[in-house]
Amino acid sequence: MAHSMAAHPDRLLPAEPGVRDIARSLYNLVEGLPIISPHGHVDAAVIEQNLPFPDPAALLVTPDHYVTRLIHAGGVPMDQLGLGETATGSRQVWRNFCAAWPDFEGTASGYWIRQEFEHVFGLHDEPTAENADRIFDAISAKLSEPGFRPRQLFKEFNIEVLATTDDPLDSLDSHAALAADPAFAGRVLPTFRPDPYVNIAHPEWQDNVERLIGVGASGASGYAGYISALESRRRHFVENGAVSADHGVRTPATLKLDAADAERLFERARAGKASLADREAFEAHMMYQMARMSVEDGLVMTIHPGSYRNHHGPTFEAFGADTGHDIPFAVNYTEAIRPLLQDFGTAKDFHLVLFTLDETVFSRELAPLAGFYPSVYIGAPWWFLDAPDAMLRFRAAVTETAGFSRTSGFIDDTRAFCSIPARHDTSRRIESSFLARLVAEHRISEERARELIVDIVDASPRRVFKL
Amino acid sequence: MAHSMAAHPDRLLPAEPGVRDIARSLYNLVEGLPIISPHGHVDAAVIEQNLPFPDPAALLVTPDHYVTRLIHAGGVPMDQLGLGETATGSRQVWRNFCAAWPDFEGTASGYWIRQEFEHVFGLHDEPTAENADRIFDAISAKLSEPGFRPRQLFKEFNIEVLATTDDPLDSLDSHAALAADPAFAGRVLPTFRPDPYVNIAHPEWQDNVERLIGVGASGASGYAGYISALESRRRHFVENGAVSADHGVRTPATLKLDAADAERLFERARAGKASLADREAFEAHMMYQMARMSVEDGLVMTIHPGSYRNHHGPTFEAFGADTGHDIPFAVNYTEAIRPLLQDFGTAKDFHLVLFTLDETVFSRELAPLAGFYPSVYIGAPWWFLDAPDAMLRFRAAVTETAGFSRTSGFIDDTRAFCSIPARHDTSRRIESSFLARLVAEHRISEERARELIVDIVDASPRRVFKL
Amino acid sequence: MAHSMAAHPDRLLPAEPGVRDIARSLYNLVEGLPIISPHGHVDAAVIEQNLPFPDPAALLVTPDHYVTRLIHAGGVPMDQLGLGETATGSRQVWRNFCAAWPDFEGTASGYWIRQEFEHVFGLHDEPTAENADRIFDAISAKLSEPGFRPRQLFKEFNIEVLATTDDPLDSLDSHAALAADPAFAGRVLPTFRPDPYVNIAHPEWQDNVERLIGVGASGASGYAGYISALESRRRHFVENGAVSADHGVRTPATLKLDAADAERLFERARAGKASLADREAFEAHMMYQMARMSVEDGLVMTIHPGSYRNHHGPTFEAFGADTGHDIPFAVNYTEAIRPLLQDFGTAKDFHLVLFTLDETVFSRELAPLAGFYPSVYIGAPWWFLDAPDAMLRFRAAVTETAGFSRTSGFIDDTRAFCSIPARHDTSRRIESSFLARLVAEHRISEERARELIVDIVDASPRRVFKL
Repeated sequence: MAHSMAAHPDRLLPAEPGVRDIARSLYNLVEGLPIISPHGHVDAAVIEQNLPFPDPAALLVTPDHYVTRLIHAGGVPMDQLGLGETATGSRQVWRNFCAAWPDFEGTASGYWIRQEFEHVFGLHDEPTAENADRIFDAISAKLSEPGFRPRQLFKEFNIEVLATTDDPLDSLDSHAALAADPAFAGRVLPTFRPDPYVNIAHPEWQDNVERLIGVGASGASGYAGYISALESRRRHFVENGAVSADHGVRTPATLKLDAADAERLFERARAGKASLADREAFEAHMMYQMARMSVEDGLVMTIHPGSYRNHHGPTFEAFGADTGHDIPFAVNYTEAIRPLLQDFGTAKDFHLVLFTLDETVFSRELAPLAGFYPSVYIGAPWWFLDAPDAMLRFRAAVTETAGFSRTSGFIDDTRAFCSIPARHDTSRRIESSFLARLVAEHRISEERARELIVDIVDASPRRVFKL
Repeated sequence: MAHSMAAHPDRLLPAEPGVRDIARSLYNLVEGLPIISPHGHVDAAVIEQNLPFPDPAALLVTPDHYVTRLIHAGGVPMDQLGLGETATGSRQVWRNFCAAWPDFEGTASGYWIRQEFEHVFGLHDEPTAENADRIFDAISAKLSEPGFRPRQLFKEFNIEVLATTDDPLDSLDSHAALAADPAFAGRVLPTFRPDPYVNIAHPEWQDNVERLIGVGASGASGYAGYISALESRRRHFVENGAVSADHGVRTPATLKLDAADAERLFERARAGKASLADREAFEAHMMYQMARMSVEDGLVMTIHPGSYRNHHGPTFEAFGADTGHDIPFAVNYTEAIRPLLQDFGTAKDFHLVLFTLDETVFSRELAPLAGFYPSVYIGAPWWFLDAPDAMLRFRAAVTETAGFSRTSGFIDDTRAFCSIPARHDTSRRIESSFLARLVAEHRISEERARELIVDIVDASPRRVFKL
Repeated sequence: MAHSMAAHPDRLLPAEPGVRDIARSLYNLVEGLPIISPHGHVDAAVIEQNLPFPDPAALLVTPDHYVTRLIHAGGVPMDQLGLGETATGSRQVWRNFCAAWPDFEGTASGYWIRQEFEHVFGLHDEPTAENADRIFDAISAKLSEPGFRPRQLFKEFNIEVLATTDDPLDSLDSHAALAADPAFAGRVLPTFRPDPYVNIAHPEWQDNVERLIGVGASGASGYAGYISALESRRRHFVENGAVSADHGVRTPATLKLDAADAERLFERARAGKASLADREAFEAHMMYQMARMSVEDGLVMTIHPGSYRNHHGPTFEAFGADTGHDIPFAVNYTEAIRPLLQDFGTAKDFHLVLFTLDETVFSRELAPLAGFYPSVYIGAPWWFLDAPDAMLRFRAAVTETAGFSRTSGFIDDTRAFCSIPARHDTSRRIESSFLARLVAEHRISEERARELIVDIVDASPRRVFKL
C-alpha cells in the first residue's frame, strides 16, 4: 500500500464519530499554534551554521536511535545503518531503512516518519525496497534547496522556542550568535546538563571535574571549588537564556549530606577510591545540591531517570552510546525524591519536573506528588512512552488525581530536527482526543475543553518552563 | 462556563451510543438502591449529636485532604485553607477554593463536588472567583435549615449502613446511642482500627499499650495481657455492631512468630529498644494475630497498605496528619501475605479484603489470590484510584482472572459526609459502564449484566462484609 | 439466561459499529487458518493412544487449574472437584462446576468453556445447577462417539502443529510413533523442559541429576557429565522434531560463571550443601548455559518466570502441584537477562522468547529489549493474561515501541485439549480488534492490517519458532 496515512485529516483521532468530531474541533484550535520545545537534543550549531543537511540517511536514519534500533532488531547489523568504522554508504543505509519500513507500522517512529515524508518532503508514497532509490533521490534534491536549510525549516515549522541540551563547559557561542542575529526570530535556549560532572561512574568524571574547577571555580579548589564552579557555569547558562537544568540519572535518589561528608566522598572519588555506596551517596547528594541551586538561580530542574544505558556492551564498544539499547527499568520516586522535597518541595518559584519510563509511577507516585507539592510537575510521556496510546494512558493515569494544571506540557526530546513538527502534531491530536472523550462522557464541558487544549499546548510549557 | 455537568443524566457513561444505552439501562436498575458504606471515616458523634454543619469551607474544604492538597499544589499555603494556628477565616478559604476550581477539572474530587453542589445544595453554577461569596452564602443558608442536619441528610441520602473507623479504646457510646434510638432507622457501625496499638513506630505506641492493657487485659500483663486486651476490645466492637477490623499498615507483611519470640520483641519495644527489624517483625506478626482473631470473632479483616504517610515533614509538623501528602509506593502482596494465608487462607467464614494504591498488583497478585483463596476478596479501587477511569482499569484488570464474585463492592472511605451519595453514584455509573461494554462486545448477556449490576452494588458489600 | 453468547458471530469484537465492521473483516481472513500451537501441555500419549476421553468432569474440570481455582475460591473444597485421595465422583464434580458457572462470567475461562460447549459439543445452553446432569449425560454421550477421539478432534480442530512439554529423559516414543504414522497428518513436537534438572530446590534434583548423567553423559561424570548429558538429551529432542526448550524459572536471572566456579557450586549442591545464594547463582548460570546450547543446537529458548508456585502449602501437600495457587509477583528483566544478552543477544539465528505475568514489563522492558536485540521476541500474554482485555493491553503496551514483528504469535499453553480452538479463536478475534482500531484511527491502512493479521496468526509463530 503506497498511500500515506499521514495525509488523512483525522489521523490519530478516536474512531467513535461523535468523539472524533469533538476531538477534531479541539485540534483545530491548536494545530496552528507555534511550537514550544523546552527540552530536546538538537545542536544549536546546526541552526547557527545553517548548512544543508547532508543526505536522507544521515538526516533521518543513522543519528536517530529510535529508528536504527528497530531495523537492527530485524537483523540488520549496525554498520549497515551507517554506524561505526565499517559503516556502509548512505544510499545502502537508506535501502535498509526502506526495506524495514513495515516493521515500523504501529510504532511512534512510524507515525512521525510518515508525517515528515508527507508534510516536510511532500512524499505521498510509503517507503519500500523498490522505491528506496527514488525516494533517496527525491529527498536529496529537496535537501539541496535553500528552503530546506535549518533556519528556513525552523521558521517553516513555526518553532518559537527550541531548547538544546549542553555540556556545562560549552561556550554557548552558537546560542549567543543566534540571539544576537536580528535576522533570526526564533529562540534557541541552552539547557544545563551536568551528568558527566556529577556521575562518578562516568569514564571521564575525574578529567571533567579538573576542567570544571579550572574554568569555573575562580580560584577555589576541592569540593568547594567544584560546587562554586557548577554555580558559576549555571550562571553562564542563565545569562545565555537557559531556563532549565536537566539530570539524566540512573535513579531519582536524593540525599542531604553535610559539607564535610560530601567533601570526603568527593575527594575519595577524585582519588579513584569511591565505592559503589560512596558513588550513590555522592550523586544523590548532588541532586539535592542541584535543587538548591535551582531554588537560588531559578533554573527549572528536570529529572530523567530509570534507563539502563548501553545495555549491550559489545554494541557500545563498537558503536558508542545512544545506539538504541538503553533499556528502562522500574523506578520508585516516593522515597527517593523525599529528601530533596523535604527542604525544597514548597520553595518559592522552584519548578521540578519529574519524568519516567516506568508507567507504573504515573498514577501511583507522580500524580500524588504533583497533586500536593507546588514545585512538582509531572513530565510528559517520555522516549518509549511518547506515543499515541501511551500518551492516552498517561492522561488517564494522572488526571483523576492531579488534573491538568500539574503536567509539564509536551516535550519532544529529539535529536531528529525534521521530526519536531510531527511529534508536536501527534501530541496535539492525542491531547484533543483525550479531552474529547471527557466531553463526550459529560465529565467536562466542551467550553472548558477548548480552554484546556490551548492551555495544555501553549500555556503549560510556558508556565512550567518559565518561558 | 457556569452550567454544571452534574445535571446531565448520562454523565460518566460511555460515549458510544449503543454502549451508553445499555449502561443507562443498567444504571437505572441501581441508581435508587440504598447506600451500603462498609468502610469510611465519618465520625459517629456527628450523626448522633445532629448539630448543624458549621459553614461551607469547614464542611467541604478544610477537612477534605483530597481537596486541600490540589489547591495547595496550585500555590495556596495550608493556612489559607483553614489549617494550622494561623488559619484564615472560612470565607477566605472558600474564595481560595472557588478560584482553584478549574484545577479540579477531570479529577474525581471535581466530579463529586459538582454533584454535591447540584444534588445536595441545588446549585447549578460552577464555582468561580466571582461567585465565591454568593455560593458561600447560599450554602450557608442551606446549612442552617433543619433538613440539612446530619440525620436528615443520612435519610435523604438513602444510607442504610454507614461504618465508621474507631480507636480500639473508643467507648462506642455514640454508636450505642444511635442503635438504641427508635427515631433513627439507619445503621452506624464501628470498625476496629488498631494501628496506633500495633505499629511500634507510632509516637504514642508505648502509652497506647499501657492504656490498652489497663482497660482490656482483665488483670493479665505483658504480651499476654496485650493480646488479651486486643481480643477483649474486639469483642466490645462486635457487641456494638462492628463487622470489620481495618489495618492501615505500611506493607502487607505477615509473619507467624511463636509466643516467646513475640513476647521478647514486645518487651524490647516497650523498653524503647526495638530495632527497625524488630518492629517490622512484630508488626508482621501482629497482622497474623489479627487474622487469627478475625477467624475466631468473625470480624472481616481489611488491609490498606502502601502509603508513605506524612511525606512532607514540615507540613506534618505545622498542620498534622491527613493533610494531603500521603504518597503511595509499590507493594507486593504475593510473598508478604503468604504466612497469614498458609494458616487462615481457607479458614471457614474468614473474610480478608485486600486493598491497594499500587494498580500493578490488581492483575498480577490480587486477582490470582482472590481467584483461589475462599477468604480473599479484592478491595475496591481506593483513595487515588477511586475515580472513573481507575475504576474501569480495575475491573478490566481483575475480571478476566477473578470474575465479579471475588470483589468487595464499593467502599467510599470518606470523611466528607456530603460526598457519600456522589461517590456511590459515580461507582454505580462506572460499574454499569463496564458491564455495558461486556454486553456490547457479546461477552455476557444483558440479562446476566442486569443480575450482576444489582449484585455488585447491593449484594456484594452485604456478602463480603457480613451485613 | 440459557442462550450461549458463543454463538454470536461478533463475540469479543469491539462495540463501535465502524471498528467492529473492520475487525470482522480482518477476523474473517484468519478464522479458518490452521492452528499452530508452539507451546502447550497436552500429553503426546493422549494423541498417540487415541483413547476416548473419560467423562466431562475428568476432561473439562478436574485437570484444568484455571477452572478448579475459581470454584474453590467460591467455597468448594478441592476434593469436591475431583482432586486428592478423598475425591468425589465425576458427576458430583460436574454439578459443582455447573453451580459455580455464574462466577466464570467475564473470565477468560468462561469465554473458552462457552465456546467449547457450543462448537465442540453442540450445547447451546449455559450450565446451571438444574441442567448439570443433563449436560453431563449429553457430553458423556458425545465422548463415546468415534468422532470425539483425540486424533479425530485434532483434525476437526484443524491443528497443524502441536508442541508438548516434556521431561529431558522422556523417550519421546509417542512423538516418534505419531511422526511415523502415515495415517496421522498433524505434527506433534516435543519441547525440552529441564527445570527439575536445573532448579536445585526441586525436591528430586539430586536423583534427577544422577539419572540424567547416567542416561546422557556417555561416561563423563560430574559437572562436565551433567552439561554433556543436557546437550545430549537436547540432541535427542531435536532429532524427534523439537523446536524449542522451555524454562519455567522463578526469576529471569542469568549469570556467566567460569567452569571451575560452576563445578564447585554443582558439587556443593549434589552434596546437599548449597546455600540459597549458591542455588541462585547456579541456576542463573544454567540459564546462560541453556542459551549457549540454544545458539549451538538451534532450539528456540523460551522463558516463563515470575510465578510463586504452590503458594498455599496445605493445598500443595494434599493435592499436589498445578492446583490453582501459583501466584505471580513482580519481575525485572532488564538487569536479570543482561549477562545472557551480552554474549548471545546478537547471535546468529538465536531466538529467545520472553514471557511475563507482570504486565508492567511489557512497555517498560520487553518492548525496548525486543526492539533492539535481533534474538529477543516478546512472548504472547500468558496464563492470567491470556484474556481479551489483557491481550488488548499487551498490544497497546508493546506495539508503539516494538511494532508487530517482534512478538511471538499466540501460545495457548494449555493442558485442556478441547479448549485449544476456543483459545486460538479468542486470540484471533482480539488481534483483529486491535488492528481494526488502528485502521479506524487512521494509524495503519486497512490493506496493511489485512497483511498483519495473517502474519500475526500464521507467519509469526512459524517464523519465531522455526516451524
